[in-house]
Amino acid sequence: MEQITVLGAGSWGTALAIVLADNGHNVKLWGHRPELINNINKTKKNDKYLPGVELPAKIEGFSNLEESLVGSKTIVLAVPTKAIRGVLNEITKVIKEAITIVHVSKGIEPDTLLRISEIIEAEMPSHLLKDVVVLSGPSHAEEVSQRHITTVTSSSKNMVAAEYIQDLFINQHFRVYTNPDVIGVEIGGALKNIIALAAGITDGLGYGDNAKAALITRGLAEIARLGSKMGGNPLTFSGLTGIGDLIVTCTSVHSRNWRAGNLLGKGQKLEEVLENMGMVVEGVRTTKAAYQLAHKYDVKMPITEALYEVLFNGQSPKVAVDSLMARVKTHEMEDLVNIMENR
Amino acid sequence: MEQITVLGAGSWGTALAIVLADNGHNVKLWGHRPELINNINKTKKNDKYLPGVELPAKIEGFSNLEESLVGSKTIVLAVPTKAIRGVLNEITKVIKEAITIVHVSKGIEPDTLLRISEIIEAEMPSHLLKDVVVLSGPSHAEEVSQRHITTVTSSSKNMVAAEYIQDLFINQHFRVYTNPDVIGVEIGGALKNIIALAAGITDGLGYGDNAKAALITRGLAEIARLGSKMGGNPLTFSGLTGIGDLIVTCTSVHSRNWRAGNLLGKGQKLEEVLENMGMVVEGVRTTKAAYQLAHKYDVKMPITEALYEVLFNGQSPKVAVDSLMARVKTHEMEDLVNIMENR
Repeated sequence: MEQITVLGAGSWGTALAIVLADNGHNVKLWGHRPELINNINKTKKNDKYLPGVELPAKIEGFSNLEESLVGSKTIVLAVPTKAIRGVLNEITKVIKEAITIVHVSKGIEPDTLLRISEIIEAEMPSHLLKDVVVLSGPSHAEEVSQRHITTVTSSSKNMVAAEYIQDLFINQHFRVYTNPDVIGVEIGGALKNIIALAAGITDGLGYGDNAKAALITRGLAEIARLGSKMGGNPLTFSGLTGIGDLIVTCTSVHSRNWRAGNLLGKGQKLEEVLENMGMVVEGVRTTKAAYQLAHKYDVKMPITEALYEVLFNGQSPKVAVDSLMARVKTHEMEDLVNIMENR
Repeated sequence: MEQITVLGAGSWGTALAIVLADNGHNVKLWGHRPELINNINKTKKNDKYLPGVELPAKIEGFSNLEESLVGSKTIVLAVPTKAIRGVLNEITKVIKEAITIVHVSKGIEPDTLLRISEIIEAEMPSHLLKDVVVLSGPSHAEEVSQRHITTVTSSSKNMVAAEYIQDLFINQHFRVYTNPDVIGVEIGGALKNIIALAAGITDGLGYGDNAKAALITRGLAEIARLGSKMGGNPLTFSGLTGIGDLIVTCTSVHSRNWRAGNLLGKGQKLEEVLENMGMVVEGVRTTKAAYQLAHKYDVKMPITEALYEVLFNGQSPKVAVDSLMARVKTHEMEDLVNIMENR
């Protein structure tokens, strides 16, 4: 049994803390809001992010980052992508020995165009960083916290580290697989939020399941095109962190990116949507980054480009979706063959 | 403008008749039940299969097969797979000139293990058969009949024929693409019904969206493994007739295979389910055929095998699903690499 620190007491950080505690580990759960943490310690619940779920006794809340890190060699990083650099900076100031960082956030940084593991490697001095592992897959926090069967992928440049994290998390309902393709795993996880926003828009506009299935299919092709050009293995996009995560995010009521898109499709403005959600919508930021990546790598990403126009240039959602669907291309293989040519 | 005969006045045959009539073609819609056809001609509705939808004036119903075929060189075959041989036999008796057959059924024949286009080629004398085209994709009939945006694939050994059918059907909301890979298109369309049945079972058992996404992901891998070994192009399984159709069938309330699985998961027996549905559930028959194909081609198909045990050997759905999910394999790539090795 180990001691593990989970940074980020949102729904996903808390759900993963539950998995680790279920497996007998001592979990220090850090969040930056003292009220939330006090409440977690007092009520043994995280009613803001996982209402109704009882937390195991082995989870202890911390609002002081330094205290939460004492004695932990494995750190689960579950903060919004926007907050990652700041948190890493704080970690660097207080730890003395090298740690393994498991990140579970899904995004790409606009402008620098770095994946999360690259940000971690850039931000942490190498003598303080043992390994970086990404844990990703189709996994709504609500269901994980209720011990529903869930499958995820543990991926790292160092497969020993990926397997170590697999061992920490795996149990009867939380099934962890390994995959050495960090690039593919990170790109699939990040970009599916774009497609989920777009799928929410088509649903909000009242288009049906047929249109949504077409959108998801093309979304996967566009993710795989970019991801394989960036060095990911095309097969990864057919796996849990690719099509699996894409399906769950586009079709489940739990998905906040889908919900945000749905509100956009129903006519709300982006600012209203973000205010009403009260949660981070990673897909908005990722759309910007993917739009930039599409240009950098010279890859066609029609859905990303259409969504970019809606989010940042005031394009009407209906006009954007209709022009996507009316594309002139008639040979299905064009899209698909491109993926393989990029291998 | 042409005259086209649609054989089969169920929901899909009727929806396709609407698309053709919208495009200005004269459509003869044949069904074997005179009451249904009389009602269609009298009310200009097909209230049994597409309640509430008004049929265009250019659709005329026929219950006499011979009359329905007079003057048509293109025949859309939209009958249940079980009825196909019988109908082809009747056609052969009455037509004088070669016809093009567009089939839109999804299945594989148990025991002979033939795809639908192979059955057509086997059953029709070659001087009466010009071309065989398959039209397939994520397309619930209800949505097509309401002119919701839908994308499908037209596939044939003869690409001129595939493009001819594309031209007949394509319009602003019914988007038709072409793909030369008949094997991949037919296998994807048939086998997704197996995964939809299994997805319905997990939903019926109360498992969540995470588990369903894992099931769909593995389902696609298993379809692609078999399909590529049978000669299909692995890329086709990432397209509209592969992942696209799989998603819509596994996640939409319209899907009758999903609904049948759902009832099984809730504890009903197969006989009860089939009786309650009152519609053909193609996935049941296809499971038997795919189970036989898995053995013939020596391909691992764990979901198909588990479902076979539930449907035909009285295995408990819960035991079957739990054993699927608890599989010992830990490297995700094993599944995926197999697909490519079979290319």
